[in-house]
Amino acid sequence: MSPGSTPILLLHGSWHGAWCWNEVIAHLMPYDRPALAVDMVGHGLRARRPECLTMRPFDPEGLATEVSPVADVDLDQAAEMLVSQIERLGRGGPVTVVAHSMGGVVLTRAAQQVPELVAHAVYLAAIMPGSDKPADRYFTLPENADALVLSALRGDPAATGALRLDLASNDPAYRRQLRDAFYGDVAPIVADAALGLLTPDAPVSMMLGTTRLTEDGWGSVSRTYVVCARDMAIRPALQRLLVAEADAAFPENPTSVLTLDTSHAPFLSMPGELAKILGTLG
Amino acid sequence: MSPGSTPILLLHGSWHGAWCWNEVIAHLMPYDRPALAVDMVGHGLRARRPECLTMRPFDPEGLATEVSPVADVDLDQAAEMLVSQIERLGRGGPVTVVAHSMGGVVLTRAAQQVPELVAHAVYLAAIMPGSDKPADRYFTLPENADALVLSALRGDPAATGALRLDLASNDPAYRRQLRDAFYGDVAPIVADAALGLLTPDAPVSMMLGTTRLTEDGWGSVSRTYVVCARDMAIRPALQRLLVAEADAAFPENPTSVLTLDTSHAPFLSMPGELAKILGTLG
Repeated sequence: MSPGSTPILLLHGSWHGAWCWNEVIAHLMPYDRPALAVDMVGHGLRARRPECLTMRPFDPEGLATEVSPVADVDLDQAAEMLVSQIERLGRGGPVTVVAHSMGGVVLTRAAQQVPELVAHAVYLAAIMPGSDKPADRYFTLPENADALVLSALRGDPAATGALRLDLASNDPAYRRQLRDAFYGDVAPIVADAALGLLTPDAPVSMMLGTTRLTEDGWGSVSRTYVVCARDMAIRPALQRLLVAEADAAFPENPTSVLTLDTSHAPFLSMPGELAKILGTLG
Repeated sequence: MSPGSTPILLLHGSWHGAWCWNEVIAHLMPYDRPALAVDMVGHGLRARRPECLTMRPFDPEGLATEVSPVADVDLDQAAEMLVSQIERLGRGGPVTVVAHSMGGVVLTRAAQQVPELVAHAVYLAAIMPGSDKPADRYFTLPENADALVLSALRGDPAATGALRLDLASNDPAYRRQLRDAFYGDVAPIVADAALGLLTPDAPVSMMLGTTRLTEDGWGSVSRTYVVCARDMAIRPALQRLLVAEADAAFPENPTSVLTLDTSHAPFLSMPGELAKILGTLG
């Protein structure tokens, strides 16, 4: 299989699903390479929703404390599923994997496990964790201090097992915060439609799992980082820190860095530009 | 372009979105033909949700009477968008279009308008309306008498402009009815995830719009009807009636009929079998 026809697998981040890549896939069609978006464990058509968001009357206590139906999902399962999705799409050959946001944690684990099946690892405004480092280490760094996601979470993740968004809220300020966090440069009507497709509970385990990275594992895989310069969920300073850490750990295999002048969701605000980047990668 | 590489465009039905085809697209990959699912006007990433489903406290009056934000959508717009999606995917050449459920009404209009761009029209448990006949004529026929959808609608479509589902309901009987109507043979966990992705309001206009069919328009397009034999939304007797009407009107171009032993949602319950049918059609 020539590099130009390497299939592209697209993995969303927390709360999202395969649906978020639809316009990117439409824009990838002229590149004549197979492209497939997949659902992460606990998301999209694998989502499990807490009851608290459909309680009548609304039960604020349930929102804060209900144990999530995805509390049992862990990074092992997420990576196992991604590896099987890579194997299926690649039919034995390598695949370019594009991961957004928390999907990066899953991509890192999978690429460490099956480096020979990942032609190129593309991190799009994604957590690209260092060896043995959990994602939640990064979110609280000064580089991410003014991000808008953590304060939008409801309930205690340690108790619910989930990063929970109150997607059934009718509080205009809260809905505005969600739009600003994820979709600042997305047309408001599309942003609202996307909010309607999100999964309220993302498994907290993605924040806590770690992967030991090796030279002949993850360290051997070609990687590109696409920085989103106006990202309010994972701030660009944090994105650049992740690149710097990776390059310090594996200096023989530096990260290629590209920048898009977008929010956290270029798949919605600049799908054509994003497809152009992805369609021409190895 | 050889018939084997004709692109496949997948159009969902009411309340659904491009997301519902994801597993089918994964199963289509080995057929090496471009496949793209698209959102219909007012659905998926083009959905607009009524406020009544996120009111706290819950407002039953709003559910019954709120004018839908998609009340202004009509079949003209839906078909115009589908034609543009066909043109984009086909890049000047013809495309095989697969329409599910109410998507059939949009496909019929589009195929009448641009028959030269539709290589094959595939109706999957879809409304395939006769000339000048609105979809709502069919739903109330005796052939569809025991279907489960109409009684799940909330509010008066004539007042709200929408076919409205109360997707935020926590009534177990109501949620069960929705699962039985759409997803009877789908794994319950997937069915629940799918219910979470539906759009509550589908534009009522899809039910009311009509298309004048001609020999050199829709009547000239190759068509296949895939009957879903355990469908509780559009009953198989109605599906067969639609085929009989079409064949009576255009006897020179009869419908190819295939049957899947599924609910209304083979894209979720039998995606591999469905992909096998679609991947090998002209």
